[in-house]
Amino acid sequence: MSKERVAIIGSGNWGSAIARQAGKNVLKHGNVFEERVPIWVYEEEFEGQKLTEIINTTHINKKYLPDVELPSNVVAVPDLVGAVKGATALIFVMPHQFFPKILEGLKGHVDHGIKAISLIKGVEVHGNDIRIFADVIESQLGISCSALSGANIASEVAIDRFSETTIGYRKKEDGEMWKKLFETPSFKVHLIDDVAGVSLCGALKNIVAVAAGIVDGLGYGNNSKAAIMRIGLLEMKHFCQEFFKDVKDGTFLAESAGVADVITSCMGGRNFKVASAFVTQKKPFDVLEQEMLNGQKLQGIHTAKEIHHFLKSHGRLGAYPLFDKVYHICWDGMPVDQLTEGL
Amino acid sequence: MSKERVAIIGSGNWGSAIARQAGKNVLKHGNVFEERVPIWVYEEEFEGQKLTEIINTTHINKKYLPDVELPSNVVAVPDLVGAVKGATALIFVMPHQFFPKILEGLKGHVDHGIKAISLIKGVEVHGNDIRIFADVIESQLGISCSALSGANIASEVAIDRFSETTIGYRKKEDGEMWKKLFETPSFKVHLIDDVAGVSLCGALKNIVAVAAGIVDGLGYGNNSKAAIMRIGLLEMKHFCQEFFKDVKDGTFLAESAGVADVITSCMGGRNFKVASAFVTQKKPFDVLEQEMLNGQKLQGIHTAKEIHHFLKSHGRLGAYPLFDKVYHICWDGMPVDQLTEGL
Repeated sequence: MSKERVAIIGSGNWGSAIARQAGKNVLKHGNVFEERVPIWVYEEEFEGQKLTEIINTTHINKKYLPDVELPSNVVAVPDLVGAVKGATALIFVMPHQFFPKILEGLKGHVDHGIKAISLIKGVEVHGNDIRIFADVIESQLGISCSALSGANIASEVAIDRFSETTIGYRKKEDGEMWKKLFETPSFKVHLIDDVAGVSLCGALKNIVAVAAGIVDGLGYGNNSKAAIMRIGLLEMKHFCQEFFKDVKDGTFLAESAGVADVITSCMGGRNFKVASAFVTQKKPFDVLEQEMLNGQKLQGIHTAKEIHHFLKSHGRLGAYPLFDKVYHICWDGMPVDQLTEGL
Repeated sequence: MSKERVAIIGSGNWGSAIARQAGKNVLKHGNVFEERVPIWVYEEEFEGQKLTEIINTTHINKKYLPDVELPSNVVAVPDLVGAVKGATALIFVMPHQFFPKILEGLKGHVDHGIKAISLIKGVEVHGNDIRIFADVIESQLGISCSALSGANIASEVAIDRFSETTIGYRKKEDGEMWKKLFETPSFKVHLIDDVAGVSLCGALKNIVAVAAGIVDGLGYGNNSKAAIMRIGLLEMKHFCQEFFKDVKDGTFLAESAGVADVITSCMGGRNFKVASAFVTQKKPFDVLEQEMLNGQKLQGIHTAKEIHHFLKSHGRLGAYPLFDKVYHICWDGMPVDQLTEGL
């Protein structure tokens, strides 16, 4: 059997952390993987130098994951098509707003029959249609796509703090190949036959984190926060099982992608923190996005809006009271202290 | 039908908070419950006055739940037998070490056929035998016993912060009666047909909280903490389903008694805090119990020891690596940084 040729698309914080895992593991499993791991880097200047040059000379992504060394077989490539040329195992790991353009750039440049995995957080919603990125990749590129999500703060994974993650696979042997590529003694990978559930967890948990942040800002205690996480987790599960086929209970209730990522996201993280500030500082979210996120969008509130419109178009708002409350508080002027009322 | 006559045995922090719920609800559901709610108070002096007198004149348990007013129909009674006389709905809510003596005091003084509910945290282990308090109450007093447990920090419930709890019942109608007695708009009660699962959660979660505290003391991040909670929750479930009959998955994965209480206990609480100090201050637990708990026992480490001996006697230690690690770190000198190794 010929060896897998890995390519990584995206080199932010999480992309760089995962490149470190993959770069080390292709060396460890030299019978399965080719040694060289190209990583597509959106070319930009950092401290007067091209980012790809910095990465390829210092082996550190100084802009997005400083202080952590990447294996030297991880090679930064500024050209997207060049980066994926000949690849048999494609890793998608970028902020979801960059995905459409990258997808266009890849069309016609990847072979059918290769494998992909999506580490993209988020979901595509258009009116009453909702799609996960793994499905979009499959249908647009004609390649089989798994998904990885979990309680994975990139900076902690990058310094080998004990962490777990979940890979949802279509075919067991694909899942096992990805596990071999990512797992280390401090980064445990669990496999589950549920691409949709794993993908959706990474998007929907941000709504729950916003709710937990609101509770935090209100000065409520840990009983309330734990209740919000529990209710949020169950709404996530119900949502996925209502609108997607073959979604497993365990993905939400027993996997890192579900319960553990909800916990991590509700103990800190940007959605939690900005939502808490929304309550304590009484500033609108667009101002807080400027002040706290350097103008980036706060994913949880935008996902809450998309899911609200989606549920409304299906006449199903009433079944998701927590999601609905988060929407009304963030976008519709509902007083924050009504969050827990009637849950 | 004659009305239920409620009596509460135990008046600590949690007993007082729950007395406030019950005292209000018997008035609200006057068709179901008698108005007077006797609460047995272990008589002691507080600031030169008898505690029962303080409670009955000020309607505040100044020693254990200061600043919160109890309804005036909650009546402190220093005599155990007097407190339960004529009761048809008995609430057991005391630290588990006081339970055996109270049980002896009750024998012959409660009618068969009445109902009870256990809010006692912990479990009775004798060698290779393990029993929940609800079962002990049933077999020793000949009365049917439910159990209540959840993400319930008493001081937060007592000021009506949004909280949830779980009642495990034997008979649905008993569960519904207890729900009527405890539920308020800010204290939501879920019912589940699983007395054993609900009871055991309240004991085993303390082992998980110790593990989370160790991770915290080590300075690991939220990925590790969330992973510990996830693994701990699954070990709790497996343990209960291995050694008790008819324990439900949902009690652990979807109920306040399970996932939510694990979260609350691992975000703060005494087991978490003392275990964290064990790592950072490098003092033995008996010293920390003196310094941080006024000499009280740290429940999580003692439960870990009991469960260790129980599992050992059954030859099942290997199936519970997290529980086992907590035991070895707390009692056997294992270095703390080995907690996550090989999980």
